[in-house]
Amino acid sequence: MADLSGFLSELASESPTPGGGSVAALAGSLGAALNSMVCNLTIGKKKYAEVESEMEELLGKAESLRLELARLIDEDAAAFDKFMDAMKLPKETDGDKAKRRDAMQSALVDAATVPLAVMEKCVEVASLARDAAAKGNRNAVSDAGVAVLMARAGAHAARLNVIINLGSISAPEHKAFVDMASEAVQTLAADADSYADEVMSVVETKLAG
Amino acid sequence: MADLSGFLSELASESPTPGGGSVAALAGSLGAALNSMVCNLTIGKKKYAEVESEMEELLGKAESLRLELARLIDEDAAAFDKFMDAMKLPKETDGDKAKRRDAMQSALVDAATVPLAVMEKCVEVASLARDAAAKGNRNAVSDAGVAVLMARAGAHAARLNVIINLGSISAPEHKAFVDMASEAVQTLAADADSYADEVMSVVETKLAG
Repeated sequence: MADLSGFLSELASESPTPGGGSVAALAGSLGAALNSMVCNLTIGKKKYAEVESEMEELLGKAESLRLELARLIDEDAAAFDKFMDAMKLPKETDGDKAKRRDAMQSALVDAATVPLAVMEKCVEVASLARDAAAKGNRNAVSDAGVAVLMARAGAHAARLNVIINLGSISAPEHKAFVDMASEAVQTLAADADSYADEVMSVVETKLAG
Repeated sequence: MADLSGFLSELASESPTPGGGSVAALAGSLGAALNSMVCNLTIGKKKYAEVESEMEELLGKAESLRLELARLIDEDAAAFDKFMDAMKLPKETDGDKAKRRDAMQSALVDAATVPLAVMEKCVEVASLARDAAAKGNRNAVSDAGVAVLMARAGAHAARLNVIINLGSISAPEHKAFVDMASEAVQTLAADADSYADEVMSVVETKLAG
């Protein structure tokens, strides 16, 4: 099996990146990958011929989300590093200070934008898990359940990372972004929970039946 | 950053291992690693000198859980493979059939035992996140939040994998195990939720303050 110990060690280290933001994106990508697995275990099976084309379509969407969320693992770390670079800018003159402040504020907007995108993708992963649980290979129904659990955890983890960055954005020109993002995280978190509750209820019923 | 794409591709593939059980263990290990990171970002900082020895102890526990849960990622896949091997045993004579049935039942007990251990470890990770959130470096409080979200998701994901295996164990000699495990998963899931609610409330308060 592929070796995960390198990532886990880097995560545990005193370096702030990768951190919780990257884990949020990874959780979403793991959920997407499990949706893909359910599709792959359904496609080509006689018993599931009726849902074959639906599963093919689901697989395409899940794979694209898996890759996009995997890309966001690194992008979250890169956004944080950009903020650290901005902090290191000179602050001798008033001009320096203004330039540094602008660079830091703009880096914070980017650092909030990445986990916001992660939340959106995680909610999409959760919506795919609904179809995977309802129509996919019954033997893999627990995997669709794990997919939605990871998607929900990823969405909430990303929400914390949006909020912690929004809290430091004070520049008036970014106020519209802060207002939009503050509202979006509430809606997206509620969507993730609602998909998760729905999918878990389908999974529990199938596991009991 | 360490390359995760290999694991994500293997997960998405039509091979049933690694699957949701391995992801449950990985989620727990990610949570443990984030607890370690919070400790590492706290130890050696003047501002947190008072909790230094506590953080050292927490780090030791988190690192041991991180490694143990990483080991369980592979062990979950191995237990499933052992079940698949048992299914392939000959079933010509009555003796064959009895031997095959015993091997399958015993493999199912192992396949339920691994995620049960994952649940126990995830609850420990969640309990460490409580101290990390309450006493660790405030700048990393969202990471302690992500740690508990991963621990909770890992516990619930593992629960599904215990249940799906318990459902196929019918041999009378394993009844005591089934009863014990059925009860344990309920208690452990409730513990994970309760730690998560508590930690998230601390995290939200610190993020708002």
